[in-house]
Amino acid sequence: MRYSCPQTVQPRPSTHESPGNGDLMRAQAWQWEGLLHISQNRVAVLLLAGGQGTRLGVTYPKGMYDVGLPSHKTLFQLQAERILKLQQLAEKCHGNRCTIPWYIMTSGRTMRSTEEFFAKHRYFGLQKENVVFFQQGMLPAMSFDGKILLEEKSKVSMAPDGNGGLYRALAAWDIVGDMERRGVGCVHVYCVDNILVRVADPRFIGFCVQQGADCCAKVVEKTNPTEPVGVVCRVDGVYQVVEYSEISLATAQRRSPDGRLLFNAGNIANHFFTVPFLRDIVNVHEPQLQHHVAQKKIPYVDSQGQLIEPDKPNGIKMEKFVFDIFQFAKKFVVYEVLREDEFSPLKNADSQNGKDNPTTARHALMSLHHCWVLNAGGHFIDENGCRLPAIPRLKDASDNPIQCEVSPLSSYAGEGLESLVANREFHAPLIIDEHGAHELVKNGL
Amino acid sequence: MRYSCPQTVQPRPSTHESPGNGDLMRAQAWQWEGLLHISQNRVAVLLLAGGQGTRLGVTYPKGMYDVGLPSHKTLFQLQAERILKLQQLAEKCHGNRCTIPWYIMTSGRTMRSTEEFFAKHRYFGLQKENVVFFQQGMLPAMSFDGKILLEEKSKVSMAPDGNGGLYRALAAWDIVGDMERRGVGCVHVYCVDNILVRVADPRFIGFCVQQGADCCAKVVEKTNPTEPVGVVCRVDGVYQVVEYSEISLATAQRRSPDGRLLFNAGNIANHFFTVPFLRDIVNVHEPQLQHHVAQKKIPYVDSQGQLIEPDKPNGIKMEKFVFDIFQFAKKFVVYEVLREDEFSPLKNADSQNGKDNPTTARHALMSLHHCWVLNAGGHFIDENGCRLPAIPRLKDASDNPIQCEVSPLSSYAGEGLESLVANREFHAPLIIDEHGAHELVKNGL
Repeated sequence: MRYSCPQTVQPRPSTHESPGNGDLMRAQAWQWEGLLHISQNRVAVLLLAGGQGTRLGVTYPKGMYDVGLPSHKTLFQLQAERILKLQQLAEKCHGNRCTIPWYIMTSGRTMRSTEEFFAKHRYFGLQKENVVFFQQGMLPAMSFDGKILLEEKSKVSMAPDGNGGLYRALAAWDIVGDMERRGVGCVHVYCVDNILVRVADPRFIGFCVQQGADCCAKVVEKTNPTEPVGVVCRVDGVYQVVEYSEISLATAQRRSPDGRLLFNAGNIANHFFTVPFLRDIVNVHEPQLQHHVAQKKIPYVDSQGQLIEPDKPNGIKMEKFVFDIFQFAKKFVVYEVLREDEFSPLKNADSQNGKDNPTTARHALMSLHHCWVLNAGGHFIDENGCRLPAIPRLKDASDNPIQCEVSPLSSYAGEGLESLVANREFHAPLIIDEHGAHELVKNGL
Repeated sequence: MRYSCPQTVQPRPSTHESPGNGDLMRAQAWQWEGLLHISQNRVAVLLLAGGQGTRLGVTYPKGMYDVGLPSHKTLFQLQAERILKLQQLAEKCHGNRCTIPWYIMTSGRTMRSTEEFFAKHRYFGLQKENVVFFQQGMLPAMSFDGKILLEEKSKVSMAPDGNGGLYRALAAWDIVGDMERRGVGCVHVYCVDNILVRVADPRFIGFCVQQGADCCAKVVEKTNPTEPVGVVCRVDGVYQVVEYSEISLATAQRRSPDGRLLFNAGNIANHFFTVPFLRDIVNVHEPQLQHHVAQKKIPYVDSQGQLIEPDKPNGIKMEKFVFDIFQFAKKFVVYEVLREDEFSPLKNADSQNGKDNPTTARHALMSLHHCWVLNAGGHFIDENGCRLPAIPRLKDASDNPIQCEVSPLSSYAGEGLESLVANREFHAPLIIDEHGAHELVKNGL
């Protein structure tokens, strides 16, 4: 079951931080506070990685995907290196060596390959004991008339129980207990598929702590009413993420007097929870969470043992969502960030004019890193030695951004690049890593 | 030469109308006023169609392109039918039969094929004498050292002189005189490539007239600092469109306290000019307009008569831009509209993850028309008879919108569809035209 009628849907809460308020001092204060908490080993990250890359068209966990960056780093590696860098930044700022534990929720379908991948890559430089794998549950898929579907003869078709399966798994694997034993006070929860994710973003952590929030959603502005993104809003007095498939177009199209969409707090599956809040969820509220029912195309074997690949929905899967616990927060706040800085999800395989695929993810990361270099005082030049404009001329805009990749080991979010690039001119592709700034092609070689 | 340093760049003017002010009464008043002017034969439209579809990959004028809508209408036909419909709406509202003359600027490369295409299609129902073709000038292309480039042996490489060649052409073909003789008071100027263009948009016309403006730019909000779109702003005290290749990224990234980009009035080549203003331009200011110099890849024959296709810029083309005359306006205003309602340009051929191409144009039009049907009370159902959500669920979002096309002869901008669709359920593809609402596929046939 779902919440009630759209008349009771309210837009984002009043405690809503927008990115453009221009108060740099305040942002720096949040950053300082966040790094302080990190330096005191009080911040953990929790990765939702139980999904399979079905829509991406791969048979392995999404985090193992290489979107084709110059470095060919996988999503897992990018995230691991951001954690490493952040530990260094916190130490540099506050003088304590510290650890950000990384909890990785897999599923029956991704657990083993994920663990093997991390072991093979020696945890990307992290300490093994600080990378904690656990596993979400599975539920059987059912036909519309309530019969359990078979994946093979005598094998029930099972699917992960949605990313909200997190809370049952936290209990089953005593993850909250592990956090408590480590002295962790708050957790950044995020989804594996966002190539730009700022893992344990200290500014976000600092904001949430200063607000005294127990639950916070990082959002981006939704600007097109028909964009298929859920929005954070209040339904019957409690916070929730509403998918727009569930309210009318007219509601989605409503605008504030300033011209912005009224329901514009686009959910990007980036949340802050305090550990006491998670403890409450696990102990008290989890059993109250309702399953959402999704109609799906579910391959199954029929009574003749024949595998059927349905071309329209033939059954249901039961899911919970991570954001289902917003309703239990004592203080819920929203923190808005810029899409181009922090959100580019990898969902689909490449296709003609596709969205959220390896090409868009790769381009988003390189465009952002290109901006970092420009903002640190670097310049790009073409084959004639002429400086390339920061933004291509309208008529010269090609589909491809300037190739530029900054290793997370060099910069977490654009900081610290001045000494490497200021007043220097580069040919693309440019790689910046712990060994410095390198042009991949020099003088046509 | 171009304007001076970015320090003197100011954001959009204070007289700037945003789409979300929610004052429906005022919008209806503009609409009424615009239709009044149209009904009195005082409004013309002027189409910029001198460019070749080089980037689109075709050898004929862009307006002849069929993006693959169910109806297979070309851009020219869509625009012609919007003019026809608007004449009817103006008559219905104000009781006068009226004409919206259509001036079409072609170039040496597109004149003949454009005229033939219109003749072949009997001017799409318009009267031949109200479709006026004229031709912009051409300028020779030059190498960097000032030599004229040859396209073939003994044939100089010529290119249209930019869409700002309009003003010289208006003089050469006495187009302003023709407008004056017809009693036209104002003109909507637009570019051929925008599939959603609201030709002679009565609301826009009414707004400009009520503002007492002689020059107005219709804009959409630019939301990403690195989006390659020019923005309307004030440079050294005069209005201009600045391409972001010409100012720093830091300037492009500046935000207002409300979080929006400071320079966000994205130019979509949709302008309102009064005829007296154009008369002034033609008589007085046109000779003062400076050429812009663009570096280009220009195919040429070398001294051995060999055709060379350069892979980097080898020469310059001289251009003027339509917006170069903003500086001469006595009252310049800006009118902001929603991108999803009014702007989807066709610039490139289809490609992996491409932008502004036939697929994005087709999808933009069908998504908009889908919204029109929903907002008029219609519903779409799937093959099981279940109503489809207005906006697809996040996880079910495919790359393809619901197929829905509304003929301009049925609705100019979404109005008047209630009697055809309210409380009805449709299977896509749905076509609405002057004969009613038709499902293309019914019961699987």
